[in-house]
Amino acid sequence: MEEELNKIDLNALNDDVQIIDIASKLQDYDESEIIRLCSALSDEKLAMVLEQTDEDTQVQIIDSLTNQRALSVFDFMQKDDIVDILGNLSIGRSKQLINLMKAGDKKIIATLLGYKDDTAGGIMTTEFITMNKKYTLDEAIKKIQSLSPKTELLDTIFVTDDNKHLIGTAELRDIIIEDDAKTLNDIVQTNFIYVEPEVDQEEVARIVSKYDLTVVPVVSKNMIMLGIITVDDIIDVLEEEQTEDVLQMGGANKEETIDSTMLESIRLRLPWLLVNLLTAFLAAMAVKVFENTIAQVVALSAIMGIISGMGGNAGSQTISIVIRSIALGKIHFKDGIKRVWREIFVGIINGLAIGLVAGVVVALIYGNWFLCLIVLLAMMCNLAISGLFGILVPLILEKLHLDPALSSSIFVTTATDTLGFFVFLGLASIFLPMLI
Amino acid sequence: MEEELNKIDLNALNDDVQIIDIASKLQDYDESEIIRLCSALSDEKLAMVLEQTDEDTQVQIIDSLTNQRALSVFDFMQKDDIVDILGNLSIGRSKQLINLMKAGDKKIIATLLGYKDDTAGGIMTTEFITMNKKYTLDEAIKKIQSLSPKTELLDTIFVTDDNKHLIGTAELRDIIIEDDAKTLNDIVQTNFIYVEPEVDQEEVARIVSKYDLTVVPVVSKNMIMLGIITVDDIIDVLEEEQTEDVLQMGGANKEETIDSTMLESIRLRLPWLLVNLLTAFLAAMAVKVFENTIAQVVALSAIMGIISGMGGNAGSQTISIVIRSIALGKIHFKDGIKRVWREIFVGIINGLAIGLVAGVVVALIYGNWFLCLIVLLAMMCNLAISGLFGILVPLILEKLHLDPALSSSIFVTTATDTLGFFVFLGLASIFLPMLI
Repeated sequence: MEEELNKIDLNALNDDVQIIDIASKLQDYDESEIIRLCSALSDEKLAMVLEQTDEDTQVQIIDSLTNQRALSVFDFMQKDDIVDILGNLSIGRSKQLINLMKAGDKKIIATLLGYKDDTAGGIMTTEFITMNKKYTLDEAIKKIQSLSPKTELLDTIFVTDDNKHLIGTAELRDIIIEDDAKTLNDIVQTNFIYVEPEVDQEEVARIVSKYDLTVVPVVSKNMIMLGIITVDDIIDVLEEEQTEDVLQMGGANKEETIDSTMLESIRLRLPWLLVNLLTAFLAAMAVKVFENTIAQVVALSAIMGIISGMGGNAGSQTISIVIRSIALGKIHFKDGIKRVWREIFVGIINGLAIGLVAGVVVALIYGNWFLCLIVLLAMMCNLAISGLFGILVPLILEKLHLDPALSSSIFVTTATDTLGFFVFLGLASIFLPMLI
Repeated sequence: MEEELNKIDLNALNDDVQIIDIASKLQDYDESEIIRLCSALSDEKLAMVLEQTDEDTQVQIIDSLTNQRALSVFDFMQKDDIVDILGNLSIGRSKQLINLMKAGDKKIIATLLGYKDDTAGGIMTTEFITMNKKYTLDEAIKKIQSLSPKTELLDTIFVTDDNKHLIGTAELRDIIIEDDAKTLNDIVQTNFIYVEPEVDQEEVARIVSKYDLTVVPVVSKNMIMLGIITVDDIIDVLEEEQTEDVLQMGGANKEETIDSTMLESIRLRLPWLLVNLLTAFLAAMAVKVFENTIAQVVALSAIMGIISGMGGNAGSQTISIVIRSIALGKIHFKDGIKRVWREIFVGIINGLAIGLVAGVVVALIYGNWFLCLIVLLAMMCNLAISGLFGILVPLILEKLHLDPALSSSIFVTTATDTLGFFVFLGLASIFLPMLI
C-alpha cells in the first residue's frame, strides 16, 4: 500500500486523467493515507479528487482539512458540488464553513441549499456567463477573454435584455464566425429551452435528451437566470435513475451498493422480504381454503404452482413494458387506461397457448383429460388477471405519484399468486368428481 | 386530424423546437398525411424531422420521397444518422441511394456501414475538424470562420501532427482567450481520452460519464482520426441500454414497445413464457416426488409456496445489485467470486429472521411446532441457495459474454423454486412421524 500510494502521488501531480482514476479508488485507503495524499496535492488537484470521489470519502477528506484549506479547495470547485459536500458534513462543520465564505459565495450556497436534491435547482450550477443583447460581438469576445479561466462553460453565452431577463442564447462559435460589428441581438437564438428550478431532475433529463442539449438554463418565473445544468450532470441523473429502477424492480433497496457492509445488506433487504412474506401468506391462505380438494387429488399440489408462476411471469412482462413507457414519457394514465382490454386480450391468447401445452403435458402425466381442461381454463384466466393488474398497477402508482418501479411487482404477483391458486383449485373443486 | 396537421405545418416552418415535437408524434399520422407534410417542409426541416422520429416513420418518409429529394435531405444530416436510416430501408433502395451519392460521401457511408451498430464505430459521426499543430490561433480562427456552418461541432478542434496522427484537442474557448500569435501546439491538451472503433457503446458511455466528456474522438490503431462521438449520442445509448435492462429483467423482449401491435406483443412474449413453463414443470416435478408426503400432511401444500417464493424474492434482490454493479463496471468475475460466501451468509441470516416469523405463524395456525422447525431450516437453506445462485449466475453469464440482465432471473428462480420445494418437502418427509 505504501508503495502504491507513492506511485499514485507522482502521477497525480502531473496528470488530470489519473486524478479521476485515483479518486475512484480512494475508498480503499485508510485515514492516514488520505491525509498524506491531501497534503501532497495542490488545492486545484484536491478539488478534482473531491469532485470525483464518493460521498464517504469526500467527508473523510474535508474532515482532515482545516477550514482555511477547505475553503481554498472550494475555490476550485463548482458551487453545486460544494453544496453536495456540505450536505453530507456534520451540521456544525457545514455552518462553520459557510460562515467563513465570502458574502457572494455565501448567498449562492444558501440559495442552492434551498432546492431539493432531485430538482433542477438542486443539480444546477451557478457558473455561467450572461451578456446584454446590446454587446457587439467584438465586445463579447473581449469580455470572454477578460473572464478568468475559472468559469467552466464558455461555449454558450446567455443573452439578457436591459431588465436582466433572459431572452436567448448565443453560441461561442457563432460569435467567432459572424461579423464583429454585429450585436448579440443579431445572432441570439430566442427559440430556446429552459426549465424552472422546481422541475424534477428526471424531467430535465428527458428534456435534455429530447432536444439534444449540452446545457439548459434554469430561470425564475420572470425569466431571471438562476443557474445552468450541463449535460454531464444529466448523465449522472440518468445513471442514478437507472440504478434505482434496476434495484427497485428487483426488490432491492436503492441505498445498497456493492460496497455495503454485510450488516447493511441484511438490514436493507430484510424489510422488503418481510413485506413479501405477508403476500406469500395471502397466497398460502388461498391454498389452505382448498386443502380438502388437494387431500383428495394430491396431483393438484404439484400442478398449482405452474398456474400461479406463469401468471407472475406474464405479469412481470407487462409491468416492465408499462414502467419503461412511463419512464420515457410515452404513456400516461389516460391513454394507458384504454389499453387495459388489449392487455387482458393478450393475456387470454398467451394463456390459451401456454395452457394448451401445460394441460396436455399434465394430462399425459396423470392420465386425466379433465385436468387438461382445468389447467387450460385456469391458465387463460390467470394470464388475463396478469394483464389486467400488470397494466393497472403501475399506471395507478404513477397517478398517485409513487414510483411504479418500486412496488408494481409485489402487487401484481400477489394478485397472480392468490387469484391463480384460487381459480385453479376452485375449478378443480367444481370438477372434483371427474378428477378422482 | 386535418386541422391538426395544418396547424403543425405552420409551426414547423418557423420553429426548430416544434419540429422535434412534430417528429415525436408522426407515428400517429397515415401515409397521405406524411406525404403532405414532406412536401410542405424544406429539405433542412425534413432532415430535422427524420433525425428525431422513430425508425418506422423514417422508412415511411424516405419511401415517400424520390431518390433525388432523399439525397438533398441527406445533405442536411449527419452521416451516422444517414447510415442508421439506410440500414432500415429495403436493401435495393439503400443500394440505389448509396450509388447516387458523391464519391466522398459514398466512401464514408461504406466505412460506417462496416462497423457494428453497438460499437464506437457504429455510433460515431464523421463531421469533425482537425488542424495541424503548426497553425497559429489567428489562422485557426480564420479557418473556423471559413468552414461552412454545416459542420456541427466546432467547440473542440482536433490537433494533428504532420503525419495526420491525432496528438490532442484544443478548445474553442482557449483559442479565443489565448494570444493570437501562439500556435495550436502551445495550447493543445495532449492528455486526452479516445476510443477505438471496435469498443462497445456501453463502454464508451462509461468513459464519457466517468470523465465528463462532451465529445470523444474515435481513432485507428495508429492514431488516425476516424470520427467523433458526441454526448447526445451517449445519452441515446444510456436510454437504450436502460430500456433493454428494464425489459429484459422483467422477461419482456427488448423489441417490444408501447406501440407494438397486439399480434407483435403476443409473438414477442410467448417464447419467454414457454421457457418459463419448462422451469415451472421442473419445480412441479420436485413437488411430485413428495406427493405421498403431501397426501399424509396436506398442510404442506399451502406452506411450500412460502419457502420457494421467499427464495425467489431474496434471489432477485441479490441479482439486481450484482447486475447493476456489473453494468457500472464496479464488479468483475474475479472479485465477484470472492463475495459468494458473503451472499450465502446474508441469505442464512435473512433466512433465520424470515424463517422464524413464518415458522411461528405456521405453527400457530396448524398447532405443530415441528412444522415451525422445518419451515425455519428450509427457509435458511433456500435463502442461502438464493444468495449462492443470485451472485454466481449473473457473474458467469457476464463471463460468457451473455447479458446478465436477460436470463439471470430464470436460472435463479428455477434453483430457488425447485431446490426450495425439494429441501422443504424432503425435511418434511424425514420428520413425517412428528407431523401426522
